[in-house]
Amino acid sequence: MALIVQKYGGTSVANPERIRSVARRVARYKALGHQVVVVVSAMSGETNKLINLAKEIMAEPDPRELDVMVATGEQVTIALTAMAIMDLGIKAVSYTGAQVPIWTNDAHTKARILDIDDKKIHADLDAGFVVVVAGFQGVDENGNITTLGRGGSDTTGVALAASLKADECQIYTDVDGVYTTDPRIVPEARRLKSITFEEMLEMASLGSKVLQIRSVEFAGKYKVKLRVLSSFEEEGEGTLITFEDENMEQPIISGIAFNRDEAKITVLGVPDRPGIAYQILGPIADANIDVDMIIQNVGADGTTDFTFTVHKNELNKALTILKDKVQGHINAREIVGDDKTAKVSVVGVGMRSHVGIASQMFRTLAEEGINIQMISTSEIKISVVIDEKYMELAVRVLHKAFELEEDRG
Amino acid sequence: MALIVQKYGGTSVANPERIRSVARRVARYKALGHQVVVVVSAMSGETNKLINLAKEIMAEPDPRELDVMVATGEQVTIALTAMAIMDLGIKAVSYTGAQVPIWTNDAHTKARILDIDDKKIHADLDAGFVVVVAGFQGVDENGNITTLGRGGSDTTGVALAASLKADECQIYTDVDGVYTTDPRIVPEARRLKSITFEEMLEMASLGSKVLQIRSVEFAGKYKVKLRVLSSFEEEGEGTLITFEDENMEQPIISGIAFNRDEAKITVLGVPDRPGIAYQILGPIADANIDVDMIIQNVGADGTTDFTFTVHKNELNKALTILKDKVQGHINAREIVGDDKTAKVSVVGVGMRSHVGIASQMFRTLAEEGINIQMISTSEIKISVVIDEKYMELAVRVLHKAFELEEDRG
Repeated sequence: MALIVQKYGGTSVANPERIRSVARRVARYKALGHQVVVVVSAMSGETNKLINLAKEIMAEPDPRELDVMVATGEQVTIALTAMAIMDLGIKAVSYTGAQVPIWTNDAHTKARILDIDDKKIHADLDAGFVVVVAGFQGVDENGNITTLGRGGSDTTGVALAASLKADECQIYTDVDGVYTTDPRIVPEARRLKSITFEEMLEMASLGSKVLQIRSVEFAGKYKVKLRVLSSFEEEGEGTLITFEDENMEQPIISGIAFNRDEAKITVLGVPDRPGIAYQILGPIADANIDVDMIIQNVGADGTTDFTFTVHKNELNKALTILKDKVQGHINAREIVGDDKTAKVSVVGVGMRSHVGIASQMFRTLAEEGINIQMISTSEIKISVVIDEKYMELAVRVLHKAFELEEDRG
Repeated sequence: MALIVQKYGGTSVANPERIRSVARRVARYKALGHQVVVVVSAMSGETNKLINLAKEIMAEPDPRELDVMVATGEQVTIALTAMAIMDLGIKAVSYTGAQVPIWTNDAHTKARILDIDDKKIHADLDAGFVVVVAGFQGVDENGNITTLGRGGSDTTGVALAASLKADECQIYTDVDGVYTTDPRIVPEARRLKSITFEEMLEMASLGSKVLQIRSVEFAGKYKVKLRVLSSFEEEGEGTLITFEDENMEQPIISGIAFNRDEAKITVLGVPDRPGIAYQILGPIADANIDVDMIIQNVGADGTTDFTFTVHKNELNKALTILKDKVQGHINAREIVGDDKTAKVSVVGVGMRSHVGIASQMFRTLAEEGINIQMISTSEIKISVVIDEKYMELAVRVLHKAFELEEDRG
């Protein structure tokens, strides 16, 4: 008997038929004698519908109230899922994040889980219940409803698996595993049987969209065995996320990730003096805006250009802050925003022991006439920001250049 | 400075424009220096949408899980309403029933309020906030989400007004007061400037749909000053619900109420012996099914027929209970259900001091050839159950017979 946490994303619970399919899978695991905790997202499209409704009332919805609204998405799904399981003759009970409770800090719309009180869940499991928990949400110490931000249901699943010391955390989604890149862009993309945590971290953060980045960090931190599977297939082993590079013959490159969601902000003509980066990014961080890539070039005339990327949704907010609070203060010449950008990344742990990956990447892009606007590197990835319109082309030619379509056994 | 509780029903918050209109009215009251607590229902149609979705998963939705789902309807509205008020520059905060908390018993889908902890609301009001509370819902002692049943938002409003010792509880709806009957059926129907609690109680329970019955009981018990107003008009005094008959020249009849929601159940050939009524209705009450009218006729052959009415939604559940648990036990010949029925009632405190109302009612119906299936009377009302298809006709001819279209000043 194992304790399994199964997390189902929005497309896996998109309608009653899909929810019944989730219930049938849960029933198969129960029939094998396992204890099952199910974490569900909102039905696909619901969260956006709620956010758009809020925006009809308030152009910049109040974060506390937005969380109250958005949390209803999962609240509907937990009840439907519990009922679908009951309808198969299995005892089930649902909990919202606040009911568990899943304690978070009070950073509305992007809260972080602080602690999970799993007493009720353990008692229910011992009494033979399947426990259905709302993903993506929690409650702060004052009883306010919080949400973890988009994709946070994965984090809920992994955090629950860690807290419950589950044997496996299964992430069900609309793909059957992690691919070398998005098959909608490169039909030859292959499913990876396993991928390391570090690679997955880079793939997720770079927008491969299979898993939410914080969930991968969590899984790594608490050594949760994590598996990505398709909710649309009855069988299939998915992709196992491993802690260590267990394969001696690890391929150099595991995949090509990309992200259309980032916008670029350039602060032009900044005095080239110490503390300038903090003066620019401090107010951005204070406004709880995540910054991804950051680049600063030394200028010739005593000034420099400072460039960074933020989520496209936060571009206007970030530009307003910079123009109101920063530009005059640091005497910058101009602030320019660009949301017609995309980030493409080559990811692989093998990069550590191989040279020439960067130059191969840049040559491949140059051969297609794709201009590189920004470059950023880590130990296991190289990312470039390019014009959005070349994104698919870049992914295709890089996938081919690194021979990712070939099965490496 | 007064403390005012304003309750808005589903049609008053049906879309963003209506919600903004609610916010503007709240702002006008705030500008006059009043403290305002707003209670809102789900946007019209939402509750039914959620119930239908649940039924797609489970023919008889689990009550606990159904409450989890249905409670999301008001949860969306409180957030939207709070944001609309904030958007006018007024501080606002929303609370679900569980967040207040509004404590109820655990009778899911028809819970009763046990207690309201209004500490947070008082503190918020004192700090200058408008407090927006979800109607229709609460939480039981184990943290389970409960709902008060359809129309329960009125009860929330009145219970909050009682707990907070509010100066007035204003119930905003899509009509501008209580009418002598439904103007959609009788165009000559008139708005009553005031109506007694007792009459209102009968009008509400009989389906005039302006106020939910339990809210009127609550208001009477706690002497809450209750006023029914239209959310579609900026001005208007609505109908005040009075405790005593303050008008010496009280009209005999205040209005004609009706109800299409009741189904009739007849238990035929029941042994005519003591305890039989309890044996029939005990299991119905145990299943938490409300019974309205009850009639038993003495039979000639040592058996009798026992007839009662339940909500149409609960007809099948009640029939199943009777057939499974009661029929064999009491040796009844047959159980018959009929949901093609309607109840029509004549209501008025003046009935106490006037005779002949019943005979005038029966004569009026007889002249139209309408057969009376059941009769039930109280001090201030006479109700009949008739074939559903004659309901509108009955209401029209009774409204005319009792001269309700004439303004009595």
